[in-house]
Amino acid sequence: MASERIVRPGLEGVAAAETRLSSVDGRAGELVIAGFPLEELAGRATFEETVYLLWRDALPDARELEAFRRELAERRAPAPAVLEVLQAAARQKLPVMDALRMAAGLLSLGAGGAAPDDADAVLRLVAAFPTIVAAYARLLDGRAPIAPRPDLPHAANYLYMLFGAPPLPERVRALETYLNTVVDHGFNASTFAARVIMSTQSDLISAIVGAVGALKGPLHGGAPGPALDTVFEIGSAERAEAVLRGKLARGERLMGFGHRVYRVRDPRADVLAEAAERLYRAAADTKLYELAGRVERTALALLEEHKPGRNLKTNVEFYTALLLHGLDLPTGLFAPTFAVSRVAGWIAHCFEQQGQNRLIRPDAEYVGVKNRRWLPLEQRG
Amino acid sequence: MASERIVRPGLEGVAAAETRLSSVDGRAGELVIAGFPLEELAGRATFEETVYLLWRDALPDARELEAFRRELAERRAPAPAVLEVLQAAARQKLPVMDALRMAAGLLSLGAGGAAPDDADAVLRLVAAFPTIVAAYARLLDGRAPIAPRPDLPHAANYLYMLFGAPPLPERVRALETYLNTVVDHGFNASTFAARVIMSTQSDLISAIVGAVGALKGPLHGGAPGPALDTVFEIGSAERAEAVLRGKLARGERLMGFGHRVYRVRDPRADVLAEAAERLYRAAADTKLYELAGRVERTALALLEEHKPGRNLKTNVEFYTALLLHGLDLPTGLFAPTFAVSRVAGWIAHCFEQQGQNRLIRPDAEYVGVKNRRWLPLEQRG
Repeated sequence: MASERIVRPGLEGVAAAETRLSSVDGRAGELVIAGFPLEELAGRATFEETVYLLWRDALPDARELEAFRRELAERRAPAPAVLEVLQAAARQKLPVMDALRMAAGLLSLGAGGAAPDDADAVLRLVAAFPTIVAAYARLLDGRAPIAPRPDLPHAANYLYMLFGAPPLPERVRALETYLNTVVDHGFNASTFAARVIMSTQSDLISAIVGAVGALKGPLHGGAPGPALDTVFEIGSAERAEAVLRGKLARGERLMGFGHRVYRVRDPRADVLAEAAERLYRAAADTKLYELAGRVERTALALLEEHKPGRNLKTNVEFYTALLLHGLDLPTGLFAPTFAVSRVAGWIAHCFEQQGQNRLIRPDAEYVGVKNRRWLPLEQRG
Repeated sequence: MASERIVRPGLEGVAAAETRLSSVDGRAGELVIAGFPLEELAGRATFEETVYLLWRDALPDARELEAFRRELAERRAPAPAVLEVLQAAARQKLPVMDALRMAAGLLSLGAGGAAPDDADAVLRLVAAFPTIVAAYARLLDGRAPIAPRPDLPHAANYLYMLFGAPPLPERVRALETYLNTVVDHGFNASTFAARVIMSTQSDLISAIVGAVGALKGPLHGGAPGPALDTVFEIGSAERAEAVLRGKLARGERLMGFGHRVYRVRDPRADVLAEAAERLYRAAADTKLYELAGRVERTALALLEEHKPGRNLKTNVEFYTALLLHGLDLPTGLFAPTFAVSRVAGWIAHCFEQQGQNRLIRPDAEYVGVKNRRWLPLEQRG
């Protein structure tokens, strides 16, 4: 080994592998997805186009897109065992992310009686995540799941399975912009977990199940709900400053601001703010959107005042919450809907890791003793 | 950030966190488990003592050990949904590691009708892994699972559930020595996957399910079977050199030799070789043990001749295979039995990671383009 040993807890600043899938420039506030600046891609592509792009490194032509859409659409319904597990989970009121993790793991049970190979499994994962989340959300509410409609596009079908009616085009567009925006983001903890698992040459489903488990953690996927809670708590624009000052005085963190990577405004916030504005305007009710804007501006000013130099800027979670709320999703579905998108990014990273064929195995810094001696049971205590 | 950015694909030589759980010194060939040199601990402790030691950093006294044994023993039977999924998996002949991963994920379904908290979940995981593996192994063979016996110790009960009779003491001792030997080993890929997931403050079951998925990969947990296959292929001592020379001439890797970390003999190989010798002697049939020793010596001499300076030494897998075969385990159960042990180490690392409360999130080295422009669908292709 030519390279010397280094200690870097948390691995911050250590590039663990190469990728062509996304570029996160936290100082410039730039996000590139499969070669496209985020703003160029997010508002235009269907989700199917984005997934195809990430997996094949090129946008599909019309024929390829239609074939890909069909391949996904026919894999939306998982094996019967999955629904049984979701029902058991709903009886115990398990969190949606746990139900999604369990159900995703069961996709190793082939729907047609045989286990899927990796090529089939990746389509099944992307296709079935919305089915699982929507079915479980309804089961938790004591309602029957709605079967997927293969004629609808991916995003439209998700809203259909949640609400029981084909969605308006502007709602589908808003959801697709969201799904495109969060589909990939460098080596975040869930993506990295998937790559570590894949690096052992394990299977795709094992890797994705690990990623779902990581996304569940509050330090990763858990904050969009609280960001919106603050807006609701404030309630009207004139209370924004007082409420936020109170939180800062009590030492509370303002949810929706600050990010480990970004030192400037998260580029995803801009894209999602614009998409949210369109969505709320289309519904002719911009009150919440305007309140959120006021909360954001006030929070940024107060953060600069209270934590000068920290550069805590609006992150992806703030407008995620506003946009998904505008689509009538309850906060409990924010992280699972994130997973509905990110699963495609995880899979792309698994493909990439397979191609690199290199085990990811860091060192540990041992800080314990080394010379304990055995004591028979009767001599202890 | 004071520390500068570095690129280290695979993270070799990068210490990602501190640990007091195990120390792996690949140059000296030393392994320390919770402060004990491996040779001091492995042949003496019951598996329950080792788990207690790893989790609480001290050996239990008689009263603590009995309480801990009981806490585990009463959690051996998982929820009914787990058995149903194992049956469905067996119908599709899924690999044991996939069945174990699915069933482990379902431990979020509380056996008593409520979801377990983390303290309950970790006991359930350790307690149920042998039940799951043994039940699935029997289902794959078309036989009915055997219910756990709460009066038997952990290792004895595993053998009982596999074979239907209480095992001889020397077989239990051999299994416990094996379980103690492989219970922890620094930041291998599965342990590291568990820590990455845990670092998001996710739950213990999510982390362990990710680790099971990583262990499944052939670059991690998959080699004990092939190591023994070579011994069987050789069949008798006088064929060892010719068969091994043939393999090397064809560029094949000799399974059971070489390790990413160890540059000398894996200390686990010594402990397991001795345990295997006792086991085979107790059964008054040392033929296979002696053949394996001859194969090992021949392989080491030929590797030194063919790959001078590479220092390819006997690794843990070679004598793992011999020992588990001596316990009548089929090769398909080698990796799952490894998991039966390592799950306790994974959990100890999760506790440690919880205490450090730091997200593990490396950088990625972006190697793609950044300036792609959108092309409407009809203009593509």
